[in-house]
Amino acid sequence: MHLQMQEVYNHFIMQKYQKDLDYSYTLGIYPTIELLKAKPEAATRIFTHSKLTDKNGSQMVKGLAARNNITIEQNDRLIEKLSPKENCYAVGVFDKYQLKLGINNHLVLNGIRNFGNLGTITRSMLAFDFYDLAIIQPAVDIFHPSVVRASMGAIFSLNFEYFNKLEDYKKKYRNHNFYLFMTDGKNELSQTNFAKPFSLIFGNESSGLPKSYKQLGETVKINQSSKVDSLNLAVSAGIVMHSCYEKNY
Amino acid sequence: MHLQMQEVYNHFIMQKYQKDLDYSYTLGIYPTIELLKAKPEAATRIFTHSKLTDKNGSQMVKGLAARNNITIEQNDRLIEKLSPKENCYAVGVFDKYQLKLGINNHLVLNGIRNFGNLGTITRSMLAFDFYDLAIIQPAVDIFHPSVVRASMGAIFSLNFEYFNKLEDYKKKYRNHNFYLFMTDGKNELSQTNFAKPFSLIFGNESSGLPKSYKQLGETVKINQSSKVDSLNLAVSAGIVMHSCYEKNY
Repeated sequence: MHLQMQEVYNHFIMQKYQKDLDYSYTLGIYPTIELLKAKPEAATRIFTHSKLTDKNGSQMVKGLAARNNITIEQNDRLIEKLSPKENCYAVGVFDKYQLKLGINNHLVLNGIRNFGNLGTITRSMLAFDFYDLAIIQPAVDIFHPSVVRASMGAIFSLNFEYFNKLEDYKKKYRNHNFYLFMTDGKNELSQTNFAKPFSLIFGNESSGLPKSYKQLGETVKINQSSKVDSLNLAVSAGIVMHSCYEKNY
Repeated sequence: MHLQMQEVYNHFIMQKYQKDLDYSYTLGIYPTIELLKAKPEAATRIFTHSKLTDKNGSQMVKGLAARNNITIEQNDRLIEKLSPKENCYAVGVFDKYQLKLGINNHLVLNGIRNFGNLGTITRSMLAFDFYDLAIIQPAVDIFHPSVVRASMGAIFSLNFEYFNKLEDYKKKYRNHNFYLFMTDGKNELSQTNFAKPFSLIFGNESSGLPKSYKQLGETVKINQSSKVDSLNLAVSAGIVMHSCYEKNY
């Protein structure tokens, strides 16, 4: 196909992201590089913008794509269609994939609603050596380009698995010790000894964990003043994982 | 003025938020309540949506407005114009104000670009007993409705002050000990003894603090794996303030 026709063709066939597509996008140079480094087998093609230069990562993207035999095409119009933000100079297309959790300690998000929070949490996971994330529905879609971008591509280095209910997760990982983070938790984070393998469980942004879950394990609180109801979810998860990292769990 | 005329009139005179307006908005019930509780003297009027009911905070908003002699007006169209999000059932209008920092420990943000990060950080400040925030330009506008919303209204309980340069801040608060957070900082957070009064200084989201600032104080790092370049700014600030709170600074 003639190159210009190819461009126009791709502009029309590549759809804006929707949850039911079986592929998604990395919007931006950084997450695109992470896709190509950590999950090249899922990448199917790369689109670049004419503003992508050697200064801002062009060689890295091109080198990684070539090494993995992934087609690169310059297509400014398509990128402008796919990315709500300006300054997006590279887009990776990748097939969605399914994973299972490993045998290590897990992070469990019982519902999460905010794209940015989920992306930020996955980035903190990599920083603090957590590699296994269980997400209990209803929750946001981890493949959404806004999550991928907020994660800076961290999702490509993690295992994650969705469950319809916390009970389904519990059945599958019976041997895990549950630590439930609640503002009225019984133990303070700094005084808690986590018994391995463990699952750190957080509720959603607006309502936290249901009180009825208290019986499922040990409840833990992060010390804070009474001046705010609760911390932001990504901040809470970051503080807890950092604490585990410092204690060498 | 006839009520309906008043509604139409207000719909036209109240502008969508811009940085150069001398007033701003709380978009949502929660930040509006915080405005009325913590900073009623800045509030000038409240608009409510017909979907605001007793269940979701109507009585609280009305009671607080009445106590402070602030006019309430139901105006669905105006709220829909002002709020980019649905489910916004109350809007507070408030005059911008200027504050000076207190004599306690400070948080210093040397440039911050993301509305959500700034809002989240102010919420963590209240949670961990920090009440004084210095913001070094160029940085986002703390009165932007997106910051106010992400803060859940926490900004109304804080002192904050903008400076053009970190040197200007340093001149004004000469007696403060500077702790600069950098990924290659010399001391680990957990090993650092902060000498009061102190200033915890963070760089912006994309580039952190300039290396040349190292001479201004003690550099500190948060332990993390090498798998990500850095943590999200709001997560870093949360971890550091939590650590100070646990050590009773």
